Amino acid sequence: MDNLTEKIVSSEPVYDGKLISLRVDHVELPNGERSMREIVQHPGAVAIVPLLDDDVFLVRQYRLAANTITLEIPAGTLSRGEEPDRAAERELQEEIGYRPGKLTRLGGEYTAPGYTTEYIHLYLAEDLIHSRLAMDDDEFLDIVRLPFSEALRQVEAGEIDDGKTIAALLLVARRLGR
Amino acid sequence: MDNLTEKIVSSEPVYDGKLISLRVDHVELPNGERSMREIVQHPGAVAIVPLLDDDVFLVRQYRLAANTITLEIPAGTLSRGEEPDRAAERELQEEIGYRPGKLTRLGGEYTAPGYTTEYIHLYLAEDLIHSRLAMDDDEFLDIVRLPFSEALRQVEAGEIDDGKTIAALLLVARRLGR
Repeated sequence: MDNLTEKIVSSEPVYDGKLISLRVDHVELPNGERSMREIVQHPGAVAIVPLLDDDVFLVRQYRLAANTITLEIPAGTLSRGEEPDRAAERELQEEIGYRPGKLTRLGGEYTAPGYTTEYIHLYLAEDLIHSRLAMDDDEFLDIVRLPFSEALRQVEAGEIDDGKTIAALLLVARRLGR
Repeated sequence: MDNLTEKIVSSEPVYDGKLISLRVDHVELPNGERSMREIVQHPGAVAIVPLLDDDVFLVRQYRLAANTITLEIPAGTLSRGEEPDRAAERELQEEIGYRPGKLTRLGGEYTAPGYTTEYIHLYLAEDLIHSRLAMDDDEFLDIVRLPFSEALRQVEAGEIDDGKTIAALLLVARRLGR
């Protein structure tokens, strides 16, 4: 055992829900002491930066947890057993009505590894082709098309404040030398 | 009411824990239908990019939720009633043993607004001065000092996969024209 790893001694399921579950783990710390960790279990997600000409598509959504309307890149939860690439193609068709002719993986991120298992696979989608799939019944959003440079301005100004959106737009900016 | 906002009809507390709480909200959707939202309540956090000469300080930590050791910028949860700027100064002294002579706000981010209230205030810390505060009893980490350009390379290569770390390092890179 290295000087950092914690070992689970026992694990209590607390809640098993629709999107997330919650468990409480009792752990042995690297120094032999005990502590507890609250762990949200999440199936993982995909998020996509869709570029068309020099524009990017974002979505405006009400987020109850933030109690605000956010501007985010299209994203969604992985279905059971679904490959991330397929999920990215599906979410893009559901949320903005395009499928990617070219899909490039940008890496990925743990959203909050202190307490949630969620990992988001990040993508760049180009060569977009019109194609629409029906959205989830309980999902409502507005599509916003704006110049990529304006989206970057909003990130730098702190006007866009969704974590995955900041990370993915800036990763694309570096890749494109923007 | 706009065409996006959801209205809470009733709210059930599920769990009230050490770091997080969980509630289930029953909501009225914009179309009048009902749905439910699982909401993790989190006190909020700070995360800091500490620069010294041309280096950045990161921390290696075991993250049980990710079941891996991550490389992250110093960060921590807000104490009750604590101002984010004070929390940033405190966390920096606890985690890397410096306090900032100059602290600049970079904005902030919702880590996963689909289900958690967590908002992280992001900072750039410069003009670092040696000053150490004791860490939490159950926190174990290694300090890693590396050139800022190497940290950026690791972000672009997908080797750094913590969301706030990707966002904050790239925001600093843009600010510094790097």
